[in-house]
Amino acid sequence: MSALFDKHRALLARAQEACEQRHCWSPYPDMPAKYPDAEAAQARGLAAFEAHMGCLFELDQPGHHGARLASQEISPYTQRSLGSSYPHSDIDALFDAATTAMDAWAHAGIQTRLGVLMEVLETLYQDHLFEIAHAVMHTAGQSLNMAYAGSGVNALDRGIEALVYAEQAMRAVTPKASWQRRFGSAQIALEKTYRIVPRGVAVCFTCASFPTWNAWPSMMASLATGNPVIVKPHPATVLPMAISVRVFRRVLEAAGFDPNLVTLALDTVQEPIGKVLVKHPQTAIVDFTGGVAFGQWVEQNAHPARAYTETAGVNTVVLDSAEDLDAVLRSLATTLCMFSAQMCTSPQNIYVPRSGVRTPQGLVPFDEVAQRLADAVRALTTDPRKAAMILATIQAPQTLALVAELQSRAQPQGAVLLPASSYVHPDFPQARTCTPLMLKVSTAQRSWYAGERFGPISFVIACDSAQDALSQATQDVREFGGLTAFAYATNEAFIALAEQAYARAGAQLTINLTGPMPLNFAAAYSDYHVTGLNPAGNASLTNLAFVADRFGIAQSRRPAAS
Amino acid sequence: MSALFDKHRALLARAQEACEQRHCWSPYPDMPAKYPDAEAAQARGLAAFEAHMGCLFELDQPGHHGARLASQEISPYTQRSLGSSYPHSDIDALFDAATTAMDAWAHAGIQTRLGVLMEVLETLYQDHLFEIAHAVMHTAGQSLNMAYAGSGVNALDRGIEALVYAEQAMRAVTPKASWQRRFGSAQIALEKTYRIVPRGVAVCFTCASFPTWNAWPSMMASLATGNPVIVKPHPATVLPMAISVRVFRRVLEAAGFDPNLVTLALDTVQEPIGKVLVKHPQTAIVDFTGGVAFGQWVEQNAHPARAYTETAGVNTVVLDSAEDLDAVLRSLATTLCMFSAQMCTSPQNIYVPRSGVRTPQGLVPFDEVAQRLADAVRALTTDPRKAAMILATIQAPQTLALVAELQSRAQPQGAVLLPASSYVHPDFPQARTCTPLMLKVSTAQRSWYAGERFGPISFVIACDSAQDALSQATQDVREFGGLTAFAYATNEAFIALAEQAYARAGAQLTINLTGPMPLNFAAAYSDYHVTGLNPAGNASLTNLAFVADRFGIAQSRRPAAS
Repeated sequence: MSALFDKHRALLARAQEACEQRHCWSPYPDMPAKYPDAEAAQARGLAAFEAHMGCLFELDQPGHHGARLASQEISPYTQRSLGSSYPHSDIDALFDAATTAMDAWAHAGIQTRLGVLMEVLETLYQDHLFEIAHAVMHTAGQSLNMAYAGSGVNALDRGIEALVYAEQAMRAVTPKASWQRRFGSAQIALEKTYRIVPRGVAVCFTCASFPTWNAWPSMMASLATGNPVIVKPHPATVLPMAISVRVFRRVLEAAGFDPNLVTLALDTVQEPIGKVLVKHPQTAIVDFTGGVAFGQWVEQNAHPARAYTETAGVNTVVLDSAEDLDAVLRSLATTLCMFSAQMCTSPQNIYVPRSGVRTPQGLVPFDEVAQRLADAVRALTTDPRKAAMILATIQAPQTLALVAELQSRAQPQGAVLLPASSYVHPDFPQARTCTPLMLKVSTAQRSWYAGERFGPISFVIACDSAQDALSQATQDVREFGGLTAFAYATNEAFIALAEQAYARAGAQLTINLTGPMPLNFAAAYSDYHVTGLNPAGNASLTNLAFVADRFGIAQSRRPAAS
Repeated sequence: MSALFDKHRALLARAQEACEQRHCWSPYPDMPAKYPDAEAAQARGLAAFEAHMGCLFELDQPGHHGARLASQEISPYTQRSLGSSYPHSDIDALFDAATTAMDAWAHAGIQTRLGVLMEVLETLYQDHLFEIAHAVMHTAGQSLNMAYAGSGVNALDRGIEALVYAEQAMRAVTPKASWQRRFGSAQIALEKTYRIVPRGVAVCFTCASFPTWNAWPSMMASLATGNPVIVKPHPATVLPMAISVRVFRRVLEAAGFDPNLVTLALDTVQEPIGKVLVKHPQTAIVDFTGGVAFGQWVEQNAHPARAYTETAGVNTVVLDSAEDLDAVLRSLATTLCMFSAQMCTSPQNIYVPRSGVRTPQGLVPFDEVAQRLADAVRALTTDPRKAAMILATIQAPQTLALVAELQSRAQPQGAVLLPASSYVHPDFPQARTCTPLMLKVSTAQRSWYAGERFGPISFVIACDSAQDALSQATQDVREFGGLTAFAYATNEAFIALAEQAYARAGAQLTINLTGPMPLNFAAAYSDYHVTGLNPAGNASLTNLAFVADRFGIAQSRRPAAS
């Protein structure tokens, strides 16, 4: 079985090197147009996606006895049901099948597992990438380009990255040792064997807005270290994971392993099974991406299972000073608009000194900064064609409701900086859309922005000073969590303070970035995603801590043959 | 400050190599007699220990305002109080001081921290080893030789091992990277900085019978990764940790760091502070060694702190067949007697086929095996001088009570294989002692042995077959936990089964070992202690998982200077 490892060895070596040096690398083209034979591949992907509409998704996994669950997936682009249904398996049957499948997989050895999993990623890339991109588009609501890049190749990169660290952690354990020592007058010689022992069944919860990006690396981390995985997708976004699970199963089976190493557990919004899965006696590992409330429940209740979480928080911006304020505001506006700020890395809270932002042209007052930022956002969203490319759609109706509620509460207080409205998507006139809502508040109104307000919602917050802005922002991150942070300052002393304060708060900081790169772009092999140091999650994608505790080391020792 | 790193660089490199190859290595002599200028050093150590008797232990740490806590330590050798007292600090003051101390330590960098911590270990070894050995002897009740070897040099080795893995985990994170990529027509070049960010204050609980062995590596793991440590010793065994804490503080201070990186929190049996420490809002890491009940509470309640536990379980022996049964029984008897089986690695449950054990001389019936094992134990414990060397003393009066209770319950059932009694220690006639209690039961009487029975208590258990013995033993490990396991078989197929079953159950297996090496001897740099795969603990000493999650990685990125 090491044939598959040999096939992918060179690629894995380059990925190892990239993770060590953290430079820019990917085996995949970053734009759909650069995909090999792009047009035909995209057409095939679209056709494959459309073939799922209204169909029974075939997944030959145990424990469903023909039972089907009707999909609750509604395309944010058409606001119509996908009309599909999925096999609905009994949970205990999935756990039993996973446990049965585990031993042979664990015994197969590190290289065999890595080879098979690299083959899974290659199959996803070569045969299913556009199919999955369309599935993500019509469940999560991303634009097709973002679905390709963010939920496609970048998610594959994160999967490879997880394999890199899994390999590092397992390689640190020698398989054999010879040991000898004198005890009194006798020489004792022992042969020792060290085994990587998987912890047990992993449950992988995936979220509604970005399912593959966290799922693939989590699945790779568990599987590489020998554990089977039961995937539990959000009921609104099942199809991308159903396709993924089927690919994992087929490649595993083709490689001679039990496909029940990867299965799909489904539920509905009305009857969730999350707690049952977490507390199942066979659950040994939980990966969770999703909301803060259930994420915290998982962290508190997963024991004795290990939990790896990514939830949400307030992503903060501190504006002190800038060489080119317009460039800063353009970049901020773009990032506030990107996928209608439904990314866990989207900025939300923008802290600005009340006195204004220092520029070479002088101090730009707070109100003017806020207004120019709102203008920049408006400029990006007025033309429906441009809006469609950047805002895409709104995944959940609840997000529209939250926007409406905040807007109606803010209006009487004069706090609305930019009102939200829908726009008409040029290709999908029925699409659920919403332009950004921007509110202007002071730190006295902290309850407005104290915590994640999911969706296209941001706050420009008047602070006493740049120092106060930094201190308010990092305090909010410590208290409510935060993944990314952005600071603009021309003063190196202030930058050093910001680096220190955000490191302590555990948010990944981007400084003085302007230009065409989205501010919250996270590069695989280079940018760590989540620090695990604040309430926005306890694990990082991807580092040694993400993989090293998914297995134990069991040894046996015996007298050496003399 | 890298002068200290340079001083210890070569030693650390040899330790790295030992951990990679897991061969036999230690920088320390394994016997007290081989210590440099041994006689004088031992005399100085004894004098230093005796100087603590009846004294106020000086520890210049914050928050005690002169308050003292009278020691509850009673020497198991003299059954008299040590009569000392310790500074009794307010808990919040310790947390605040630790938090204040953390930043400079975190900023000092990896090599500086490793250098200082290696210097701590060297100072413990050169200036305090016999003082600590006597302190362990007169609190934990170990013999002086075991206190030297097990609580002295071997514990130092485990400390170095923790530094090795902490260094590996931190070295995997490059401090800097250059990253560039094209976005549209623009080339974006970023400089990235990656920071090791300590999680926060670590609380290290140490146990009554073997305090330094788990404490030093846990403290090293936390400190190497930048976290301060508050040590909470068991009230019965404070002095070894008080001496340790003072050494840490002095070396840290001499190296220019805040000594409050390491402090001592004390309580009494009547008013424990364990839960307060675990749930303290500033607690980020908990290391716990001790009883199962509180250990499980820690695992379940530590969140959001990370918990690393080692509790207890049933250590099992499976006897199928042997080339030299007498040699097997001698080795087992020795290990059952060692420190009166008050080690977390001591065997307790011995599973034997009812039909007997196969030997070249034929099948030795179950009852005969049990009797010969009891005879071997009796032979080691009849002569008080020999008994004193191997059994040492009983740490806690509760252990005597448990022995008495089990013996009186077993007697009417005819289950007593070897009754316990006290023996008169030749040097300490008042010593609390107890020879091993051995019971003979069947698997129908599982409640007798289902769980740890702490102290010199063992069970010889009649099973249906060797296969049944293995299956009962590994099931008991899965259910009640287990650290070590021992199997004797001449049949390779059975050995392979045992290796597999114990790996899945998560106990470290020793096969067919006889001779002078104690069966449960765990070699630093070579034997992993605890797998984390069963209820006997969730962490292993020492692997990457033990260290990699004690810190997070915070990054900052900014446009490269052009």
